[in-house]
Amino acid sequence: MKILLIGANGTIGSAVDRELSQRHEIIRIGRTSGDFQVDISDSASIRKLFEQTGKFDALVCAAGNVTFAPLNEMTEESFALGLKDKLMGQVNLLLIGREFANDGASFTFTTGVLSHDPIYSGASAALVNGALDSFVRAAAIELPRGLRVNSISPNVLVEAMGKYAPYFRGFKPVPAADVALAYAKSVEGLQTGQTFHI
Amino acid sequence: MKILLIGANGTIGSAVDRELSQRHEIIRIGRTSGDFQVDISDSASIRKLFEQTGKFDALVCAAGNVTFAPLNEMTEESFALGLKDKLMGQVNLLLIGREFANDGASFTFTTGVLSHDPIYSGASAALVNGALDSFVRAAAIELPRGLRVNSISPNVLVEAMGKYAPYFRGFKPVPAADVALAYAKSVEGLQTGQTFHI
Repeated sequence: MKILLIGANGTIGSAVDRELSQRHEIIRIGRTSGDFQVDISDSASIRKLFEQTGKFDALVCAAGNVTFAPLNEMTEESFALGLKDKLMGQVNLLLIGREFANDGASFTFTTGVLSHDPIYSGASAALVNGALDSFVRAAAIELPRGLRVNSISPNVLVEAMGKYAPYFRGFKPVPAADVALAYAKSVEGLQTGQTFHI
Repeated sequence: MKILLIGANGTIGSAVDRELSQRHEIIRIGRTSGDFQVDISDSASIRKLFEQTGKFDALVCAAGNVTFAPLNEMTEESFALGLKDKLMGQVNLLLIGREFANDGASFTFTTGVLSHDPIYSGASAALVNGALDSFVRAAAIELPRGLRVNSISPNVLVEAMGKYAPYFRGFKPVPAADVALAYAKSVEGLQTGQTFHI
């Protein structure tokens, strides 16, 4: 398979790369690094990416920004980044990318545990993750040509605990390599409309 | 209690009005009807509403628009209405309304069954409903002064089946009066961070 991996340089992206590159051709994409660059918050940048990559068999997005802030400091503007970047960025990867997707191709998006297991400062992340998990469930039933879409909802990563531990007390962190297996299940399996909780 | 009821003139709003007006003071709010008017997609309009109503003990929003369209006709723009109106409209009712909420006041928002039981043309509704259900879970744990927030996720209404039946084959519709009970549970009970599925 020809797999587009967005966020290839990140902690999850690198683990997905290690898992899937054993069996597939990986096109590595980043905001500033990789074979190609994309800003997923900009639909013109997304279209330009696909025009460069051409047709593909799977797209994995392990990128997406949201604002972390205490709710009492948040305003409407605090939610704009998450809506534009992690949420509509990934939605747009499907809306635009479907034109470039081979029959039976899959889209695999990244959400996260905060949708249902919230933490301090996580309101925007929760909103975005919940939106995407529901979007994939709905979009899956309308996709033509055997196209599929799933989301991966990881817990906090072992590799991120050096930085995030104070925010995630009591959470059992998962190794990025375990999370990468869920991406392989989505890409190489046949399920659609699912959220894999890791 | 002094209860602000947004969407008071709608099918759900009318049923909530009948249920809660037996025991409470209801301030009826609509886009064009009611005691006061608000456009929830406009944060300035929301702030003006609260300056008119003053302090309150409960806010119920039974309003919010999304675009229904087949996924293959949807673009980024098709999602804008739902993000601005039903999603951020209700988020902004909390972000702005908390300044006007008495200690222990509650916010009750409306989502819907399509977040987890999708239909043709329902991708934007699913996204918005899922976003809000996760937002209330996260926001609830950060609210000060005993403030609470829940969402009500109704199935298709008996009263709407004349119009919507072809889209909801196989769904068991619920009477608006039953849905109204969930709003009463949210307003008059003590739970927070919950989604009540009716």
